Formats: sequence, C-alpha cells, structure tokens
Amino acid sequence: MTVDFDLDSWMRVRLDRVERALEAWITADAPQGVDHGAPAALVEAMRYAVLDGGKRLRPLLVLAAHEAVAELGHGCDAAALRAACAVELIHAYSLVHDDMPCMDNDVLRRGKPTVHVQFGEASALLAGDALQALAFEFLTPLDGSVSCEVQARLCGLLARAAGSSGMAGGQAIDLASVGLPLTENQLREMHQLKTGALLQGSVVMGAECAQPTAKVLSALEAYGAAIGLAFQVVDDILDVTADSATLGKTAGKDADNDKPTYVSLMGLQASRDYALSLYTQALDALDASGLPDTAALRALAGMVVHRAH
Amino acid sequence: MTVDFDLDSWMRVRLDRVERALEAWITADAPQGVDHGAPAALVEAMRYAVLDGGKRLRPLLVLAAHEAVAELGHGCDAAALRAACAVELIHAYSLVHDDMPCMDNDVLRRGKPTVHVQFGEASALLAGDALQALAFEFLTPLDGSVSCEVQARLCGLLARAAGSSGMAGGQAIDLASVGLPLTENQLREMHQLKTGALLQGSVVMGAECAQPTAKVLSALEAYGAAIGLAFQVVDDILDVTADSATLGKTAGKDADNDKPTYVSLMGLQASRDYALSLYTQALDALDASGLPDTAALRALAGMVVHRAH
Repeated sequence: MTVDFDLDSWMRVRLDRVERALEAWITADAPQGVDHGAPAALVEAMRYAVLDGGKRLRPLLVLAAHEAVAELGHGCDAAALRAACAVELIHAYSLVHDDMPCMDNDVLRRGKPTVHVQFGEASALLAGDALQALAFEFLTPLDGSVSCEVQARLCGLLARAAGSSGMAGGQAIDLASVGLPLTENQLREMHQLKTGALLQGSVVMGAECAQPTAKVLSALEAYGAAIGLAFQVVDDILDVTADSATLGKTAGKDADNDKPTYVSLMGLQASRDYALSLYTQALDALDASGLPDTAALRALAGMVVHRAH
Repeated sequence: MTVDFDLDSWMRVRLDRVERALEAWITADAPQGVDHGAPAALVEAMRYAVLDGGKRLRPLLVLAAHEAVAELGHGCDAAALRAACAVELIHAYSLVHDDMPCMDNDVLRRGKPTVHVQFGEASALLAGDALQALAFEFLTPLDGSVSCEVQARLCGLLARAAGSSGMAGGQAIDLASVGLPLTENQLREMHQLKTGALLQGSVVMGAECAQPTAKVLSALEAYGAAIGLAFQVVDDILDVTADSATLGKTAGKDADNDKPTYVSLMGLQASRDYALSLYTQALDALDASGLPDTAALRALAGMVVHRAH
C-alpha cells in the first residue's frame, strides 16, 4: 500500500515549511510581550548552527506523525510546525555542544566548520544554551495559535526527551563509557537515551498535536523506539563504511576514540541484520496503530535504515 | 507598616521548602511516565551544582510574589514551589557554564571548587545542559497538580527569561563588551538581560501562579525590573569592596578582566546612590500594586540592596 507514496515530494513540501519557519523564528527581533530583542552576534551563531544544513529527520517525524493522527480530524498544524522546529533546535544545540573541544573536539559538521571553530568556544557554549531555551519559546507562542493543553504537553515531552533521563543523560553515559567494554544491553540503553529519546519524542510530540487515542500513542511510541535505535545502529555502520565527505563530518571517529559501537560489539553484518529487524518492528507498530494512512512514517523509517549519510 | 515583618523567620520556612524540594526532585529516579532514570554520575554533578549553596534569592522572589498575589485567594502552592525550583535550576546552570574555562574560567563558587574543576569540563557542560531541561520538567508535572494554563504560561516566561532575549543574550553582550567602553544605557541593557530578566521573571512567574490582575502584574514587573538592576549595581560594588572569602567567589574579577561595571563607569558613591534610588523605585511599584500585603517583597528588595555578599 506504500508503493505509490512519493517520499521526495512529500518531504520537499514539509522541508520547505520547516526551513522557512526556522529562518523566520531564529531572529534578533524582540518576541511578542518581551521588551528586548536578542543580541545580533548571538543570533548569528544560533542561525549558523541551525540553518542551511541537516537532514531535518526529527522535524519530518513530527510532521509525519501529526499528519497520520490528524487524519482523524483533530490536528493543530501550528502546534506541529512549532514542535517540528523545537526538536530541531534541541538537536542542533546538542551538536554544537558535542563538537566542543571538551567533548568530541570536532572541527567539521555538515561540511562546514563547527560553531566553536567559526565563532569561538564561549559563543558556541552560549549559542547552544540559547537554542535550548528557544525551543521552549517556540512551544509557547503568545498568539493563541496553540492551546495551553498542547503547549504544556509538548514542553513536558521535550524537556524529558532532552534532559538527564533523555539525550543529555545518554551523552553522559557515552562520555563515561569510552574505552570500557559494554554489553549489548548497556549499549542499547545508552543509545535509547542519547539518540532514541529525541527521535521517539519527535514522533510522540507530532502525535500529541492531534489528540491521539491511547492505542495510537502506544503504537507510535513503539515505532519511535524502533527507528530511534535503528538510527544509531546505522550511524555506527556508516562510521566505518562511509567517508568524511559523504558524511559531512569526520568518519571513523568512534573507532579512533575507542568508543563502543554496534559494529565493534556485534560485527558489520549482524549490525546490518539488526537494523533491518528494527525496521520491521517499526512497520509492525504502524500496522498495530490502526491509523488509516501511515505512508510517510513508513517511508521515513525506510530512509533511516537505508540512508547513506 | 513593614516594621514588624520578620524576614529571617519568613525566609527560614520558605528556604526549607525549596531545599527539600530540590533535594527530592534532582534525582536519578525515573520520572513518572518515563522509562529510564538518569545516569548517576550526571545527577551527582547536577546536585553538586545546585544543592547546599546559594542564597536562593530567585526562589524566594517567586514565593514572595506568589504569596502577595495569592492573598486574593487564587494561589496554586504546587505551581509556585515548582516555579521557585525551576528558576534556581536555570540560575545554577548559568553559573556552571559561566565558570567554565572558555568563559570566566573560575575555580571557586560558593566557597567550593566549581563544577568543571570537580567533575571535568565535559561533565560540567552536560550537567548545565541537563539542568536547563530539568527546569522545564519541574514546570510540567504529570500528576495534575498544576493546571495546563499555568504550566504553559510558566514555561513561556522561563524560556524567554533564560534565552537569547534574556539571560543568555545578556551573557553574550557581556562577552562581546570586555575591554570596550560602554555607555550607561548600554551597560543597563546588558544587565537587564544578563541578570535582570531572570530576577524579574522570578517575580512574574510567582505572580502568575495566582492569576494576577493586569494592574498587579504590571506593578510587579516594575518591582522586578528595579530589583533586577539594583542586584547588578550592588554586585559591581561588592566586586571592588568585598573580599573573596565573604563573596564565596573570586573578588576583583571584573576589574582584572577589564569588564565595564557601574563602579568603573559612575564611581563608587554614585553607584551606591543609584542602588538606593532603584530600591525606592521597587517600593513605589509595590505601593502602586494595591496588594494588601507586600512585606516579604519589600524585605527582599532591602536584602538585595543591603547584602554584604
């Protein structure tokens, strides 16, 4: 039933909406109800970190999940677009901080100098901090376009996906595990937090903009968990099979840094098989949701598993 | 009419509530509705950054503003306590990041080694990031104790007070202005963002937990703006008049770093006069609010201006 779905043209329309919103909303202008605008130099670093780059996978997951559920008639497009942009800001801030010398010390990201190389370490630190706050500004518009219920729910989901029991927690485990032998369970838990929480959070936030039933929500949580893990397994595979130019970042970093990965733990072929089985789990979850149209979510799962960078 | 108000005993009760809540809520336990807890090492650094130190001025402002408005009968104590703890997390994260080598490179804070000295730079970076997210978790409890309206409003206020048009924006201006001659207006704008936004935000968030009228809100915004600026003027005075042991941090840093301050701009005596005139402005705003009992807010304004550290 997904044979006729044209992912490229579906994506083109959504990416255009997201890019235009990010372009318009990361600004030095004073937001409504606030006296001061933001300093231009800080906003420049924030825009550099977010605009003109990135696959926008998380925003696409938000919009696809929202559309799949809103099919039933309850969607809030304004909320979904804000959620899509908010998760991308959290992702972008995590990359800015992750690239800093005290973390991965990386100089190349999306084919460009990293933020701290371009603007200095102090500005990178502040730009990341400000991007995290801006994500919550996005979710709490003062113009009445998003109900208080949805604003509160989205803020709660994003905070938990980004924080100590989500992304930041996973990064802390990652940091502490360099050079240590991890079991597959430990590796999975680390990645469920580090990458999985925000990917799954994107799916759930998109769904929450359209008042999902408990059954739909549970199925989409399972879908999000499966693709979140698949994303990381594929990341580990690409780290050893792709070159830096294709990745837009330094390849082979994990092996060089003696970081535990799926490939180092289970080997290349078993990692590929594992990614495919997670893909199947994701599709099964969509079947179980009972949603009438999950073509975009299916196609995005395929993109996660079959991507070349 | 404030002659009989006993600030010490008022504070003792509120500080005890805040300390116990922070102690209980910054935890490695999985929050409700989330699968994973937070990694213990990350939580240890977060607790180190927040617990057992600090004057808790921002939480006290939240609670005092809430009580002054809730007098009228609409208060939500659960929301006010959560807001009080959330603003303290934002303050604590900003200190962690501000102390890092790429920023102020400070080794002493509240009389203890700074977080990056104690736990390493990467852990300090992540702990700060996670504290910011945790602030928004605090504001979005899943137990129904805070209405969606108040959750949404508090998240929006905190994000704007912390972000690029608030605290982080002020830090960016501060960073860019080292060694530059600033006018008094430029210095005031920098401080209104860097320190004033979160202090004022604390007052407004406390008020918002108790459904203030527009008149009350506007008066408390003016009060918050005045004490926010007064706080920074006094900070600049103490930087040149107090010693490191009294301050619990390195004294004389601003002059050493050639940072513009009120004292360097207008001299010591004029800075003291300015702080007193801001104190009067704050009290005038409370008079204009029409609130029946503003004794705690008055006393806190006095503490801000007359503090020795």
